[in-house]
Amino acid sequence: MEMKIATVQFAPVLGNIEATIAKLGSLLEEADEADLVVLPELANSGYAFSSREEAWSLSERVEESHFLSFLKEECRKHQFAIATGFNERSHDKLFNSAVLLDADGVIGTYRKAHLFLNEKDIFEPGDTGFPVFSLGEVRVGMLICFDWVFPEAWRIMGLKGADIVCHPSNLVLPGLAQRTVPAHAVTNRYYVALANRIGQEKDLTFTGNSLICGTKGEILAEAEATTEQLLITTIDPLQARDKSLTKRNNWLQDRRPELYRNEGLTD
Amino acid sequence: MEMKIATVQFAPVLGNIEATIAKLGSLLEEADEADLVVLPELANSGYAFSSREEAWSLSERVEESHFLSFLKEECRKHQFAIATGFNERSHDKLFNSAVLLDADGVIGTYRKAHLFLNEKDIFEPGDTGFPVFSLGEVRVGMLICFDWVFPEAWRIMGLKGADIVCHPSNLVLPGLAQRTVPAHAVTNRYYVALANRIGQEKDLTFTGNSLICGTKGEILAEAEATTEQLLITTIDPLQARDKSLTKRNNWLQDRRPELYRNEGLTD
Repeated sequence: MEMKIATVQFAPVLGNIEATIAKLGSLLEEADEADLVVLPELANSGYAFSSREEAWSLSERVEESHFLSFLKEECRKHQFAIATGFNERSHDKLFNSAVLLDADGVIGTYRKAHLFLNEKDIFEPGDTGFPVFSLGEVRVGMLICFDWVFPEAWRIMGLKGADIVCHPSNLVLPGLAQRTVPAHAVTNRYYVALANRIGQEKDLTFTGNSLICGTKGEILAEAEATTEQLLITTIDPLQARDKSLTKRNNWLQDRRPELYRNEGLTD
Repeated sequence: MEMKIATVQFAPVLGNIEATIAKLGSLLEEADEADLVVLPELANSGYAFSSREEAWSLSERVEESHFLSFLKEECRKHQFAIATGFNERSHDKLFNSAVLLDADGVIGTYRKAHLFLNEKDIFEPGDTGFPVFSLGEVRVGMLICFDWVFPEAWRIMGLKGADIVCHPSNLVLPGLAQRTVPAHAVTNRYYVALANRIGQEKDLTFTGNSLICGTKGEILAEAEATTEQLLITTIDPLQARDKSLTKRNNWLQDRRPELYRNEGLTD
């Protein structure tokens, strides 16, 4: 089973969804051959809000989102699915979310569990746990940006059978996540597609270097630090289901859950 | 607070403890200025046993070990502590262990939780959990070789306040652990000293490339792949106690243990 994964590295336009959509329209043309396209965090709004009010004004509900409608149409046109960062309004709350959708609509939503810096003033901590969704026969998980710090989340994706983890990001700490994510891939034996953004908003410079890595933690494709760039690579999701390491070792079955108990990993 | 960490990369002599001790005696001279020296896995016996009987004949009890007596005397002579891999006999069982000791004797023992390949025919799965020991004011954890695959163990070390994790190893998969261990260091914000062995035993080639990495996952010192080599570097254990990442983020406190519950991390 082969599929093509793409990441779109670009700069969403803070507060101007039509400008963002115009950029994405042409970038997604290049991704036409992909089966699954990953966009950065908060792709519908930009990141560096001046206030919660600004973030609120740029948020959308999943059920009636101009941005997601546009992406759904792109999915129809190009016959791919998309995992995108999404500034999500739900009742009176905001979540820093990731949405998986295809031409038939939304498949699932993940709300960022671990909030970075001033996001804590704006967004609620995610309440979805760490779901893994079915995209046809492929199992797709999503984690967002700062989640890279927390191996628990990545391990849960592995335990739930993710073949690929999509990782929409707006990373600002140079290189740290990009060096760490391959370790999450190799210890869980799945693919990771890290779609980072570029550009500057207020005092934040986003670090690019999007990457797609394989089940052995090998870098399959890697973007530059500062340029708009599409990565696209072929993967075999079945490789992520083979958790054998040697004829007597298995990446997951060799775990010792009884030794991990009562050590503070969970509450 | 500064201290000097060393790793000794060498080839223990399978089945010839006196030859191993002779090698170590001169290597440890070079480590004289160190405060804590890490030796490879199974340093008292070698690795590629033909049978459990052979492993048994080369094992020692912690309480009456010729090898540990030698190391204790080296600790006295050089005024350092040692974390060493140790083929441990306990009653009728064998464990692939790591022992922390200084001039006053044994401080603590860890028994390898995750066994690799044919180790499963020889050793019992470790039953100590993942202890962290006090070496003066410094908190020292130990994990062994194949444990690198299991982020749970590394996270537990972080939660227990390890300043440094000593990682005696006999690695045979080229590069995988050496690329992954820095990620464990950075996500837990502690030091790691990976002491790997070199050389060949039967059909196994050990991969060297011992390393000491810092709390940001940076490589502080790295050995060659095939040569006997001492690494020594100065670290500040207090840096491992500063878990702040930004003024509003903390490597450990930002965890969401309530979201990690019931997801299969523990039994």
